Amino acid sequence: MDLSGVRLTDDANDVVTADDIDLVIELIGGYEPARTFVATAIEHGKHVVTANKALIAKHGEELFPLAEKHGVAIGFEAAVGGGIPCLKALREGLAANSVESLYGIFNGTCNFILTKMENEGADYMDVLKEAQELGYAEADPTFDVEGIDTAHKLSILASMSFGSKIKFDEVFTEGISKITAADIEAVAELGYRIKLLGIAKPHCVDGVDKVEMRVHPTLVPLSAQIAQVSDSYNAVMVSGDFVEHTVYTGRGAGERPTASAVIADVMDIARVCGNGASGGVKYLAPPMAYVASERQDIATLPMADVQSEYYLRFMVQDEPGVIAAISSILADHRISLEAVSQKERHATQAVPVIMLTHATTEGNLQAAISRIISLPSVQEDVLILRKESFGV
Amino acid sequence: MDLSGVRLTDDANDVVTADDIDLVIELIGGYEPARTFVATAIEHGKHVVTANKALIAKHGEELFPLAEKHGVAIGFEAAVGGGIPCLKALREGLAANSVESLYGIFNGTCNFILTKMENEGADYMDVLKEAQELGYAEADPTFDVEGIDTAHKLSILASMSFGSKIKFDEVFTEGISKITAADIEAVAELGYRIKLLGIAKPHCVDGVDKVEMRVHPTLVPLSAQIAQVSDSYNAVMVSGDFVEHTVYTGRGAGERPTASAVIADVMDIARVCGNGASGGVKYLAPPMAYVASERQDIATLPMADVQSEYYLRFMVQDEPGVIAAISSILADHRISLEAVSQKERHATQAVPVIMLTHATTEGNLQAAISRIISLPSVQEDVLILRKESFGV
Repeated sequence: MDLSGVRLTDDANDVVTADDIDLVIELIGGYEPARTFVATAIEHGKHVVTANKALIAKHGEELFPLAEKHGVAIGFEAAVGGGIPCLKALREGLAANSVESLYGIFNGTCNFILTKMENEGADYMDVLKEAQELGYAEADPTFDVEGIDTAHKLSILASMSFGSKIKFDEVFTEGISKITAADIEAVAELGYRIKLLGIAKPHCVDGVDKVEMRVHPTLVPLSAQIAQVSDSYNAVMVSGDFVEHTVYTGRGAGERPTASAVIADVMDIARVCGNGASGGVKYLAPPMAYVASERQDIATLPMADVQSEYYLRFMVQDEPGVIAAISSILADHRISLEAVSQKERHATQAVPVIMLTHATTEGNLQAAISRIISLPSVQEDVLILRKESFGV
Repeated sequence: MDLSGVRLTDDANDVVTADDIDLVIELIGGYEPARTFVATAIEHGKHVVTANKALIAKHGEELFPLAEKHGVAIGFEAAVGGGIPCLKALREGLAANSVESLYGIFNGTCNFILTKMENEGADYMDVLKEAQELGYAEADPTFDVEGIDTAHKLSILASMSFGSKIKFDEVFTEGISKITAADIEAVAELGYRIKLLGIAKPHCVDGVDKVEMRVHPTLVPLSAQIAQVSDSYNAVMVSGDFVEHTVYTGRGAGERPTASAVIADVMDIARVCGNGASGGVKYLAPPMAYVASERQDIATLPMADVQSEYYLRFMVQDEPGVIAAISSILADHRISLEAVSQKERHATQAVPVIMLTHATTEGNLQAAISRIISLPSVQEDVLILRKESFGV
């Protein structure tokens, strides 16, 4: 390919301010300087395509109104679900629906680690180390394994699903670093698999709309489609009032799947703006209709009000009456049990007791837990995993 | 809702010829009179949205050029995969990719029947009867169970994937009516499940592009995502050179999922054509860029040249040497075996012998089969199922 007519610069400012550039692709990642470059490009009348979920989740509420003001589009398909065209499906393909729930495996690193822990019976730290050596996990894996990356993506999808503003800071977020090989084995015996899910649902509480948003390791039934999504694959499950359940699966990261999504956005914008004619092309009929001014400031449902079923792993001294004491406190809080299991016995060391509860609110569960860990035979570090059922 | 200003007519011709109507939705189904109404609407400058896969598969090559000539769009998302926005994903979301393969469960009736046969160990005719009583299958189920509906949909998707003309008549098509409960059990023991798949792949044979298109009951590994798609759900798996494997799952039929797809098409067209302004609105920058004049007349790969692995069920007289005789003919044709199984024994009745082969061409396999069924101990009705592996 002859690139001799193409200008080359090592100063990104030349690109975002050039008069004869219609569209800028931002693949720097992170908050700054990406934010400044993108804002400058928009102010200079350029469309932007980005793969930067952190930028959209954190600064979308500044950038979308700016783009609207300047009549340009921001394409961000690559920011969520990598190569899976899930934003397009949600925004356009399911446009006739009210979204009733949203579930996703959004982080390939976590899914790779959980899959490997299950397949090899290996512990978290060992698999993380291997993932880092293979380049699947960063040297500092915090954003991935602590659920922050998933929360970025979930906050973006929730906004698109419910017409709410992006509220990344309000997503309840827990990662996978406390999961042990023993937990994965214990849930498998109960017919479940652990996946790090982002979950969002709309609610109407006393006539007021609210949005539930949470990221945490989740028990999913082995028979659910989302349970079959392994290794570094991502999946998004969108349920709408007309379409019912839809699931989208594919590579959630990697340079080629990301490029696939970036170029699709560029083609979408080019198609509507005409034949690449430069200067003064306004983006009046965006196919990517993410209209900032039409979104509402909808409150986030407090985590205490979120309903779930729970998997609880207590570490207890193996003394008579300890399970009875725990069960009695749960019963006080009207939390009923689906299953209880204590396999190991040990005279002096703490042993795990596993309980599966029926549905209750997080607030009620936490109140019960705080009473339970004040029991002399129960240790403080309780593992709380939430459990979801699926229509498909 | 006040509908008093809305004109009501019992003559569809009033609608397709009216001056002040921009878009016509066709949900009649079948070839005629749908074809005439749609062609008339297009000739009168109206966009058309349809859920009619038979119409598109059979008359698309007439209707798309007509629409192009009149500057209008044909939306047909609902024709394939029901509520799943798979055409949009393929056409727009994966636009940067060369499609490397396409697999789909496109017929909910067949998937429902196969799922129920497996779950209940029931035979085909019993389940079909139940499906008919429940309204899941038509009184004349031929279009569904013999794979014709799947072939309609596959021919449409293949055309969109490979830029080829729609060649429904050239799709190799077999249905599920010969599958028995015993076959389903036998393949399960081998680690497979039977799904009616539509399969399309591009080929380059001696420098000439060809398209492989086939519909038949297929052995899929139990671990494949597409194997988990049960009941009346549909799934489409598209693999692209950049995005790798993507899978889209959802309800493949039903009035509400169909409505979801139809309205999405209407919204797509309305968005690009402006604010519903009537008269003279040309559709110059279609988001649904299915440009008839840019598609090529690409030949269909002859079925004899298609490569597959095979599951073969012979009915044989249980005499010494019969398996050796069959194997010897297969070896003559350089077809090697992965597994052989004969469970039942019977002195006078024919018993099934099951063989799983490694890859060969269909032509070579059929040549071997025709020699095998000329053996005196082998009956003529051989069940031939093809086997596929998946990356995901």
